[in-house]
Amino acid sequence: MQHRIFILLLTLVTFASATLGAQTEEAGVPASTNIPGREYPRILPDKRVKFRIHAPEAESLQIDLMKKYDMQQDTGGYWTVTTEPVVEGFHYYSLIADGIPLMDPNSQTFYGMGRMASGIDIPDTDMDYYQPHHVPHGQIRSVNYHSDITQAWRRAYVYTPPGYDNNTDTRYPVLYLQHGGGEDETGWPNQGKADLILDNLIASGEAEPMIVVMDRGYATDPDREVDPNAGFMGGNVFSEVLVEEIIPMVDSTFRTIPDREHRAMAGLSMGGFQTFQTTMTNLDKFAYVGGFSGAAFVRDGNLTEMYDGVWADADAFNDRVKVMYVSIGTDEPERMYQGVNAFHGMLEDAGIDHVYYESPGTGHEWQTWRRSLRQFASLLFE
Amino acid sequence: MQHRIFILLLTLVTFASATLGAQTEEAGVPASTNIPGREYPRILPDKRVKFRIHAPEAESLQIDLMKKYDMQQDTGGYWTVTTEPVVEGFHYYSLIADGIPLMDPNSQTFYGMGRMASGIDIPDTDMDYYQPHHVPHGQIRSVNYHSDITQAWRRAYVYTPPGYDNNTDTRYPVLYLQHGGGEDETGWPNQGKADLILDNLIASGEAEPMIVVMDRGYATDPDREVDPNAGFMGGNVFSEVLVEEIIPMVDSTFRTIPDREHRAMAGLSMGGFQTFQTTMTNLDKFAYVGGFSGAAFVRDGNLTEMYDGVWADADAFNDRVKVMYVSIGTDEPERMYQGVNAFHGMLEDAGIDHVYYESPGTGHEWQTWRRSLRQFASLLFE
Repeated sequence: MQHRIFILLLTLVTFASATLGAQTEEAGVPASTNIPGREYPRILPDKRVKFRIHAPEAESLQIDLMKKYDMQQDTGGYWTVTTEPVVEGFHYYSLIADGIPLMDPNSQTFYGMGRMASGIDIPDTDMDYYQPHHVPHGQIRSVNYHSDITQAWRRAYVYTPPGYDNNTDTRYPVLYLQHGGGEDETGWPNQGKADLILDNLIASGEAEPMIVVMDRGYATDPDREVDPNAGFMGGNVFSEVLVEEIIPMVDSTFRTIPDREHRAMAGLSMGGFQTFQTTMTNLDKFAYVGGFSGAAFVRDGNLTEMYDGVWADADAFNDRVKVMYVSIGTDEPERMYQGVNAFHGMLEDAGIDHVYYESPGTGHEWQTWRRSLRQFASLLFE
Repeated sequence: MQHRIFILLLTLVTFASATLGAQTEEAGVPASTNIPGREYPRILPDKRVKFRIHAPEAESLQIDLMKKYDMQQDTGGYWTVTTEPVVEGFHYYSLIADGIPLMDPNSQTFYGMGRMASGIDIPDTDMDYYQPHHVPHGQIRSVNYHSDITQAWRRAYVYTPPGYDNNTDTRYPVLYLQHGGGEDETGWPNQGKADLILDNLIASGEAEPMIVVMDRGYATDPDREVDPNAGFMGGNVFSEVLVEEIIPMVDSTFRTIPDREHRAMAGLSMGGFQTFQTTMTNLDKFAYVGGFSGAAFVRDGNLTEMYDGVWADADAFNDRVKVMYVSIGTDEPERMYQGVNAFHGMLEDAGIDHVYYESPGTGHEWQTWRRSLRQFASLLFE
């Protein structure tokens, strides 16, 4: 008598491993953002990307990666397309099937564009700083906490630096690090590789060991009426949640140094705007400020009236704020580039000390923000 | 002069918040597994599920949730379908567009079926044990480590119980908890809600505070030839990686009690097989064993010859192993149910102490495994 236990288990495992078996003679390498074992999309030596999808029943398929590419039906029901060379760094992309922007089943998924999306990471000549190396590694911790303001459970990702668990007498400074619009708290851990960037900077002595808190930039108070004229961030009470709930939660949960000289905030795009909105009205709580591809929303060019006149007295401001950092990619959309560059000019005209960085050749994307984090983190808590 | 900084930022934020605005008068509630703010899929009071996708250009669309349902085109380019009542618990599902099983853009994504997949969680009458409550919460930590055997960087998720950071003199027992075939180390944290189950069990005193390690059940040694006759787990060296690399890494990184009386292993489906394969040949390292919808792969019904005869001397085995736990859902595919049930019968015939549990009304899915973890965790380290 033979007991053939787990026949269906066998089927599942075979199914899983079948995806690992497809070896090809093709040039290039599978993207690091693929599901492990998937051969496509492949990044060719000249940074063109070849996509391949099995879809014998499809009428037409497209890949939307910076621009739309029509796929061509191959033999055996495979659809393929090779793109133009793609700029280095991480890009969201879509598979368009039946006219709907969807996810490529070959790709891992990332929260961006207001939904889960496919992503592809094109190698950069300077990418060592966000690769895993044989150095001490920190951890990213998922922390559930209840927010009374939003009347909801929320999740923060918290990077603790190497040695945090062993050096139990050591307290650490904290960087609050925000994602952009259409993204969420998974952005910096996944797309941004914040943990690897910090691990490597700390190992080389370029950054101080620090805690990094990556929370969700969306927050609404269900009891509060939203003024319909409040503008594009109307109803978003994240600044309030951060100052009144998240910072106290972090200070009581982790071994922080809970004062302004050891607290920084930075964010990208929408998160950069939130950073300025939060820090400039709470300078008793923050001494370091970073806006990556997004900073203050200066109306009428009148810097000195912003945020209750925080920039009216440049000397006082420069004395108070240890580092203010503003960055932009040179290939961002013109209005974004002009906006941040103009803000930089206004700061300079007003005598406000700040570090300004332009990321060469990158757009409103994660490669600009990885580079910005690398720089900004190295300036903190010295 | 007016500086309209961040026009495109505005566009992004508007795009993100547009998804939050769609209020409907429809019955039911948005699934908890939806992208926040998405109204569909909606779970109706009788557990039918209504899906809705905007796809004005589509020719035909289907939802594949346990079975395939044709969607119908509504006015304004919306496609909808309402399923039959769906059994409680978490299910993977697909949106079929252009004939390809893809992900519903309304859903969060989960690694299952060997790729990222959509998921829907149908409320259960008994679901309090995996909901967040006002009790102390543990953390799930993402730990990067290098594996010399596989010559690769790997990631473990490690649950640390409430109080871990404060009780720095306390050491904890460890449960190694594995996912199934086609899933990965994200399964237990995301689909399984392992952290919430443990938080609630620990808060009520039903389980001892413990560390839970959730690693990736796939591991290959690039230098090793795989015997083509080695069977369905041929070439998978996970047991070796666990015993030689993961356990030492965990014992040196966390405050564990590093002996067999304080070490358990359990897994579901393929992970249950791996659990028995690992623990039965390493009883000097494990005292607690759990197989959820998957356990030993008994050839020829000859229990006593398995694993170097570990079950030949029932008294010795019963003395050595504190808890052996075997479970199955009553609605699993017949051969799976029969396989595990037969294994249970063989253990009984051989006088091998074990706990056997049948999850009523659930299949080869996460609801069976959440219930199993709840039971198994409460039996550990007493």
